Amino acid sequence: MRASIIGVGKTRFGPTTYTLVQLLHQAITSALADAGLEARDLQAFVVANFLAGPNNSQLHLNAVVAGLMPGLHLPGWRAEAACASGGVALHQGLLALNEYDPVLVVGVEKLTGIPGADLTHNIGMAGDAGLDQAVGLTFPASYALVAQEHMRLYGTTVQDLERVALKNHTNARNNPKAHFHQKNVTEADIAQGPVVATPLRLYDCCPISDGAAAVILSREPVDNRSAQVLGSAVRTDAISLVQRETRTSFSAAVEAAHDAFRQADIGADDVDFAEVHDCFTIAEIIAMEDLGLAAPGEAVELLRAGETAPGGAIPINVSGGLKAGGHAIGATGIGQVCEVVKQLRREAGQGQIARADIGVTHNIGGVGGTAAIHVIGRG
Amino acid sequence: MRASIIGVGKTRFGPTTYTLVQLLHQAITSALADAGLEARDLQAFVVANFLAGPNNSQLHLNAVVAGLMPGLHLPGWRAEAACASGGVALHQGLLALNEYDPVLVVGVEKLTGIPGADLTHNIGMAGDAGLDQAVGLTFPASYALVAQEHMRLYGTTVQDLERVALKNHTNARNNPKAHFHQKNVTEADIAQGPVVATPLRLYDCCPISDGAAAVILSREPVDNRSAQVLGSAVRTDAISLVQRETRTSFSAAVEAAHDAFRQADIGADDVDFAEVHDCFTIAEIIAMEDLGLAAPGEAVELLRAGETAPGGAIPINVSGGLKAGGHAIGATGIGQVCEVVKQLRREAGQGQIARADIGVTHNIGGVGGTAAIHVIGRG
Repeated sequence: MRASIIGVGKTRFGPTTYTLVQLLHQAITSALADAGLEARDLQAFVVANFLAGPNNSQLHLNAVVAGLMPGLHLPGWRAEAACASGGVALHQGLLALNEYDPVLVVGVEKLTGIPGADLTHNIGMAGDAGLDQAVGLTFPASYALVAQEHMRLYGTTVQDLERVALKNHTNARNNPKAHFHQKNVTEADIAQGPVVATPLRLYDCCPISDGAAAVILSREPVDNRSAQVLGSAVRTDAISLVQRETRTSFSAAVEAAHDAFRQADIGADDVDFAEVHDCFTIAEIIAMEDLGLAAPGEAVELLRAGETAPGGAIPINVSGGLKAGGHAIGATGIGQVCEVVKQLRREAGQGQIARADIGVTHNIGGVGGTAAIHVIGRG
Repeated sequence: MRASIIGVGKTRFGPTTYTLVQLLHQAITSALADAGLEARDLQAFVVANFLAGPNNSQLHLNAVVAGLMPGLHLPGWRAEAACASGGVALHQGLLALNEYDPVLVVGVEKLTGIPGADLTHNIGMAGDAGLDQAVGLTFPASYALVAQEHMRLYGTTVQDLERVALKNHTNARNNPKAHFHQKNVTEADIAQGPVVATPLRLYDCCPISDGAAAVILSREPVDNRSAQVLGSAVRTDAISLVQRETRTSFSAAVEAAHDAFRQADIGADDVDFAEVHDCFTIAEIIAMEDLGLAAPGEAVELLRAGETAPGGAIPINVSGGLKAGGHAIGATGIGQVCEVVKQLRREAGQGQIARADIGVTHNIGGVGGTAAIHVIGRG
């Protein structure tokens, strides 16, 4: 599945007083302007969102987006796959290119400032109602089980998790769109974080962010700022950890990466950098292993050696990731693509890395129930 | 967009004690058996659902479906477009055929028997949170405004609405899968229905149903039981009636019908029968006009002449429609296709109509915010 990304737009991730509709509008107009297009040039759209129903009492978001483009009546629909909604929407947008060109893919989430919203309950809906929610297996608890098992099997340490947090908070300082762009987080801050679910502490957990992100896909590039989608794959798995054979790797991600790399005709060695789904610090380590950037249990060696920092051999989450860049759930998978395109175009300013010709995005729903992987190259 | 429908499966629509997951399982296994396939033969799936988040505390339904197919890890995602979720999912399944073959499209809704669920609030999420929900513009109220305007402009009468209800309840008696299959509804019952929102009374409103429906799509037919998708179109419009120029026609449906008929290379005269989105009786009348089966304001003439009955020139909702067949929201658009395929195959038993070579499905989200139209022919 090959195509061009001819425009990108992303709001700042983080708490805001903007509404769901305003965030959508900002990301869409920004991506259209970046592509040099107007809404009437579009032929279809996909809108990604996870929680607007339970959290904002607003479903039928494709009609909400249609209201922002009066009279156009475009084909359009909403994609939902928990925290992988954005990556899945991108895959759908690429499939839609077979009939429509260009296609807008926009993701949005508005989580903060909703009186009475029970975010723990709502986010829990990404887990099984019976097997997970009913027994209190929240997402921090699930990822804590994952971390415990990874530590037991491979000797991964609390200090390794702290290294992920420190790197990503440091990276976020160079990304003006990052949730924690303005927050100086030190080793001491991280070490003093209160326990959330052992071994995960405060700085092991990504924040809850508002935000939106959009891309414009087309069959052909417009100019050398257009990035190229070289591979796109989605895979699923049983929703609950208790239905899986292993907790230290997500089969959906392994298989999606294999498919996406095959499409792109690359090996893991060809990947210059990656934006991965570090909803918890342990998830970044597992993402690297699932992508084949390190053998199982060996990602921490690259981490300890500084090779995943912006100046290292394989920079991971230069944007700050979900951990410090923010997690605006339905927008996250599309926001990752915006960050990769920024690097490919050499437009990342203080955060620009030196070798950025092939980037990968890795977007996970739930505890590995969905994985969406994209390989993106320079125009 | 052409393809074959090589398998169909539909549960009975109506209140049940089966769970969301059990309903999914029943429809999927039924469609697979009908196609002579096993789950491992599938290459991708789409799951349509509207309210499992707010109503069942279960999002991430693609991972729930993946749990029913252990170890397969298929590409899959959820489609949501309010009451048009099913029709939109079918369109997505057809787009997915460019990469995957065969593709399962399944829709599900579990609305009854959920302690504490506020169905009026939840269903209201298909309307705008500010413009509709906040001012009490529920769906019966919105469609009442539509009916009032249609009556004012075209002289449509309360008796015309009653004719739709009586026809569809009569049709449901021949459909064992219909919500009101066992209910004998008379003219007197309908005339005595209490007012819901003037001019709509009880029998003008479809019921709330549980249910699931599935189809298997493939690029090529298997045998002469395979039906052919000849056209597939989705269009959107601003979510709220107050944002529209007209209330007596849905532009999204008019434009989707035009596109689907163009793809199929047919005119409205070539349509033998249609399953249309009669969430309220007035909606069936408008559907006929939006599809071009009658000029604006003239559908009632066909209705009064009995031409929309099973023995008439253009049978509408032979299944009982949403009105008496039931409205299992996320499953409805796919259930319509199952009903059309049943007719095309001459497998409709007592409900079989004589001329059934080209059928149309018309599936609406909200009050016309989304429309999905499919043209389906004999194999």
